[in-house]
Amino acid sequence: VKLRDLGEFGLIDRLPTLGVYRHRSEDLLVDIGDDAAVWRMGDEFLVATMDTLVAGVHFLPGVAGWDDIGWKAMAVNISDIAAMGAWPRFALVSLAVPPETAVSDIEQFYEGLYTSAALCGVTVVGGDTVRAETPTITVAVIGRAEAPDGEPLVLRRDTAAVGDVIAVTGKLGDSGAGLLRLKVGVDDQDPLVQAHLRPHPELAMGAGAVVAGITCAIDISDGLVQDLGHICRSSSVGAVVRAVDIPLSDELRVAYPDDALRLACTGGEDYKLILVGPQGRIADLQEGLETADLAVIGEIIKDNYEKRVRVLDDAGKEIRFDKTGWDAFKS
Amino acid sequence: VKLRDLGEFGLIDRLPTLGVYRHRSEDLLVDIGDDAAVWRMGDEFLVATMDTLVAGVHFLPGVAGWDDIGWKAMAVNISDIAAMGAWPRFALVSLAVPPETAVSDIEQFYEGLYTSAALCGVTVVGGDTVRAETPTITVAVIGRAEAPDGEPLVLRRDTAAVGDVIAVTGKLGDSGAGLLRLKVGVDDQDPLVQAHLRPHPELAMGAGAVVAGITCAIDISDGLVQDLGHICRSSSVGAVVRAVDIPLSDELRVAYPDDALRLACTGGEDYKLILVGPQGRIADLQEGLETADLAVIGEIIKDNYEKRVRVLDDAGKEIRFDKTGWDAFKS
Repeated sequence: VKLRDLGEFGLIDRLPTLGVYRHRSEDLLVDIGDDAAVWRMGDEFLVATMDTLVAGVHFLPGVAGWDDIGWKAMAVNISDIAAMGAWPRFALVSLAVPPETAVSDIEQFYEGLYTSAALCGVTVVGGDTVRAETPTITVAVIGRAEAPDGEPLVLRRDTAAVGDVIAVTGKLGDSGAGLLRLKVGVDDQDPLVQAHLRPHPELAMGAGAVVAGITCAIDISDGLVQDLGHICRSSSVGAVVRAVDIPLSDELRVAYPDDALRLACTGGEDYKLILVGPQGRIADLQEGLETADLAVIGEIIKDNYEKRVRVLDDAGKEIRFDKTGWDAFKS
Repeated sequence: VKLRDLGEFGLIDRLPTLGVYRHRSEDLLVDIGDDAAVWRMGDEFLVATMDTLVAGVHFLPGVAGWDDIGWKAMAVNISDIAAMGAWPRFALVSLAVPPETAVSDIEQFYEGLYTSAALCGVTVVGGDTVRAETPTITVAVIGRAEAPDGEPLVLRRDTAAVGDVIAVTGKLGDSGAGLLRLKVGVDDQDPLVQAHLRPHPELAMGAGAVVAGITCAIDISDGLVQDLGHICRSSSVGAVVRAVDIPLSDELRVAYPDDALRLACTGGEDYKLILVGPQGRIADLQEGLETADLAVIGEIIKDNYEKRVRVLDDAGKEIRFDKTGWDAFKS
């Protein structure tokens, strides 16, 4: 069996069954399979995540600038911490590049990365620099969760309950549209392109959700349908989303009138949060916000068998998409 | 300027000057440039490190088995925590591989990695799996330092003092020799090959050194001369090493009689610790050990200008090596 056939999520499902000698600390509270891991260390609750970006797969040198690549490598990891409702503190960075890379490109990369980190209060503390034919970036971010009563308050994927409402923290699809534009050479100051190159992690939204008593969230990296699907499978529920309620930007509607909904549902890399919780708590969070960026788009339903996401049109008919999102190994 | 010309250590020297907007938390105690970073989080002192291994550069699929590759990817990171005198607790793992990789190879990789982690009490808590043409592995390990009086007790690179003695925690050169043997197809049960494929991090030695009041150490990844050189430059001192006192295994002497010293000084990847401290404290540590594995090999001397390592023969004459060790970008 090849990895291509198993797929990324097939592999992740299989990992916990491996390792006869696997050590599992009882201090581990949230394991592989959420946006980030959570564990206890003394009186602190640590939240940690790590993502790898590969040139040609996750970013396009020459199309995106190295400062944008650095920004995004940091921001997508901070977004995982935001999706846990925690605060990021420190980061490790590994950069693998060919020896013939211009030093000025590397400097630009770190400028973008440090800036993205600094805006979120993250200190880069070390890492590694190695030689590789294909530029590859790995960032790990470590943060902390609040634990006012000795138990960490975090947002998980496995706590969605039937009857909960589903909300998103911003407009979707701009990043996917920006990628299309970037590939045809649109100026990188275009707002859609900016949404793709320079995501802003939703730290305040994540932390606010925790305060409002919400316990379930994920960030949109693979795409709304796929990421909400992760919540459904982890929580053993289904989800219905009303297409008309998915927030879309004017720029997206104008640029891709026929494709806006598909980009919003499957484009990915928006790095907004999907929050799932009782209607009253979502409403509490909405009231506490200065902006109207939290939009309710659907509900959690009972679905013991398929545990999947259904996007419905105005007539209540399901809209199907060819590809629901990203899988690292299937093509 | 290309990265090849600047070199890995030139790049590392330049990084702190980058980032107009770089955020530096006052909780950061040991920054980029040591084996691991150390920071305060609440009442805890965290120690964290991250290394990347690239196929064809750091490991050879087909030559080494995937279980060995997994073992080593974990062990070399745990070794960095050992070199700080700290205890590792949790790890994040990122695996980038081609979609046509056999799932059985991936399973072997995780078996080796989980076993190596378990033997050191490390829980693997998450990470990433992505597609890449060249297999690339990144592991981050996070541990904790003891802090009996509210200050973390760690081993650093910048605390060597003139008059300190230099000790190593085991025999050197076996790993370099094992790599040579592996490349010509010697059975992987050969003890030299095993030393290369399955390093054992020196956690007890690192922790013991801290208890003995030693404050300076590094692990041997790049090679004795180069890694001791990192201590010299960080501490602004020089070092003399007596070749005759460098511990060599019988296997190494027999297999490479003419090359044993060179392999011990520049072969790298032994993952023994270099400990530097006052003679009395090194002696205290030696007394506390059940084995005779701690060997004094030299002294720290004043050397304001070159800050370098001199390996001396029986007559006190310096032995020069063509290549002192590893640089990621120079070839």
